[in-house]
Amino acid sequence: MTARIVVDAMGGDNGPQEVVAGALMAAGGLGVELTLVGRGDAIRRELEGTTNIERLRVVEASEMVGMDEHPTDAIRNKPDSSMRVGLEIVKRGEADAFVTAGNTGAAMAGALLTLGRIKGIGRPALGTVFPTADGATIMLDVGANADCRAIHLIQFAHMGAAYMERMFNISRPRVALLSIGEEDSKGSQLVIEVNAALRKSRLNFVGNIESNVLAHGLADVVVTDGFTGNVVIKTIEGVAEVVFGEVRHAVELTPWNRAAGLILMSELRKLKRRLDYTEYGGAQLLGVDGVTVIGHGRSNARAVFNAIRAARDGVQGGLVQVFREIAAEIPARHGGSSDSTGDDEGG
Amino acid sequence: MTARIVVDAMGGDNGPQEVVAGALMAAGGLGVELTLVGRGDAIRRELEGTTNIERLRVVEASEMVGMDEHPTDAIRNKPDSSMRVGLEIVKRGEADAFVTAGNTGAAMAGALLTLGRIKGIGRPALGTVFPTADGATIMLDVGANADCRAIHLIQFAHMGAAYMERMFNISRPRVALLSIGEEDSKGSQLVIEVNAALRKSRLNFVGNIESNVLAHGLADVVVTDGFTGNVVIKTIEGVAEVVFGEVRHAVELTPWNRAAGLILMSELRKLKRRLDYTEYGGAQLLGVDGVTVIGHGRSNARAVFNAIRAARDGVQGGLVQVFREIAAEIPARHGGSSDSTGDDEGG
Repeated sequence: MTARIVVDAMGGDNGPQEVVAGALMAAGGLGVELTLVGRGDAIRRELEGTTNIERLRVVEASEMVGMDEHPTDAIRNKPDSSMRVGLEIVKRGEADAFVTAGNTGAAMAGALLTLGRIKGIGRPALGTVFPTADGATIMLDVGANADCRAIHLIQFAHMGAAYMERMFNISRPRVALLSIGEEDSKGSQLVIEVNAALRKSRLNFVGNIESNVLAHGLADVVVTDGFTGNVVIKTIEGVAEVVFGEVRHAVELTPWNRAAGLILMSELRKLKRRLDYTEYGGAQLLGVDGVTVIGHGRSNARAVFNAIRAARDGVQGGLVQVFREIAAEIPARHGGSSDSTGDDEGG
Repeated sequence: MTARIVVDAMGGDNGPQEVVAGALMAAGGLGVELTLVGRGDAIRRELEGTTNIERLRVVEASEMVGMDEHPTDAIRNKPDSSMRVGLEIVKRGEADAFVTAGNTGAAMAGALLTLGRIKGIGRPALGTVFPTADGATIMLDVGANADCRAIHLIQFAHMGAAYMERMFNISRPRVALLSIGEEDSKGSQLVIEVNAALRKSRLNFVGNIESNVLAHGLADVVVTDGFTGNVVIKTIEGVAEVVFGEVRHAVELTPWNRAAGLILMSELRKLKRRLDYTEYGGAQLLGVDGVTVIGHGRSNARAVFNAIRAARDGVQGGLVQVFREIAAEIPARHGGSSDSTGDDEGG
């Protein structure tokens, strides 16, 4: 099956230039069918003189959602935005996945509004994959839901495990719950409740994990609420900024320091990539009815390529179908009735 | 007034050696009266041949709380531990402050059990001071309370502001609320409720702050619940560990890299200190009836000295009295009756 992927050509700080460049890389190397959505003239300017365009179609959208716009307002008030138009192509079944480097909040709101939730999934979650000592870990939710109930976190755990199974070929992924102590009894009331439920689940639950060892590779899936998860990824971003600000300052102090900086540059770049979780294909909105990948606003062509690859893998891994099965199983497994799925009305 | 400070000589990974060394530095340089609590023979061995001991008294305690012991169990089951004995000296009014580099959970539990809360403060909070671009910020709560209600966070805000006023001489400290978006409407229900209350308070509330800009110096006080705050400080700790692990690796790869590492060493050390929030005098347990400073378990003599200095400043700044006044004022200001202080019974 060739994955059909819609790319929001206008999204991000570097659209359409870097987005189109990334799409061209993907068209050449990933065996996907791509649809670029946005202002046709701007997109075609970027495509001029390029090859690999036989699998590339352009769909016109006259508006775009700015990076600082209010997410739901922008989505509701701009029906002809590249985000809305792109998502509706997926909704109509003309494509399998949507990729954007645009406004994350708007992309989440748009996907919920357009694609909707998978039936039985209480809350879609934003997952992000970050590198560890010897592999990768998905953390979810990193920002879709500021308030979560236990059933939501339990569903996140199952979706995260399915994601790592399908996307990283890990059998029986190790699932951990982010807390402020390793013991089952440590953490908020919510965490203690979810810990007990995950202990009883069929998942390979390895217990609580603390945020100082997230990079140690102790788990394949880290589950948390969207408030805490968002705070974690922004804390990492902030510390990385401090580190590289200080390093930049240090290597400019004296000619000797400058020379030392040049010698170490390639290693420092590696470190920078390790702290930049956007390298890994962006964030995945798991639980909406259609694969949705949201790259960082600063995405360059390589990051857009990675996001498209993640979308392709999600389509080929049948993630949406797997999540449907999870949604059908979990309420029963956790002793709830259909009322206990935590479904939210509307949206 | 000479501050009378009790130091848990057995606490931490490096007690009693580094603790006693730090206490000697403080006795020499801080004009405080110190009481060292722990095994007399071990303490006296460290004191042998030193000067500055005229302001130093030793009180015997036969037990100690290990770093990995269960906090409340250890405190309850070891009445002759250096922590319990030390806290009881403060409780009896024979000293003004307690300093330990021991088990943080046990120190919190011990302070609550022995000193008790200041009347009207619903929950004491653990605060930690970290460096920013041009000064310092206190964040609280960083781990005392995994579940908080709005009134607790409001009291944290007032205690944090009073702390920065008294300890850092900042008038009208800027208070911010940790959230996942700058807008007042962003965040969890708890955060939105607290935001609205702080907008109406007499504090210099500057709104929500996101965790990627914590080091930018935008606020003097950052308020959060103990779960989120603990996750933030442990995330910083984890990233710092990754960074310095990679840097260590990078500067050992080749002789050239080693030379470059030597050139940059002093700057890299500065960066390390900046990421090590324990440099700043440890964490403060604000809201218990007696100044309580909890240093990091890895504290060396310098860190113990800093913790003792922070305790002295807390005593001389009259923090306990200020918090009493805050406790008396806040319920009325926020329209609550005395029932709404969020007091927890017992403990």
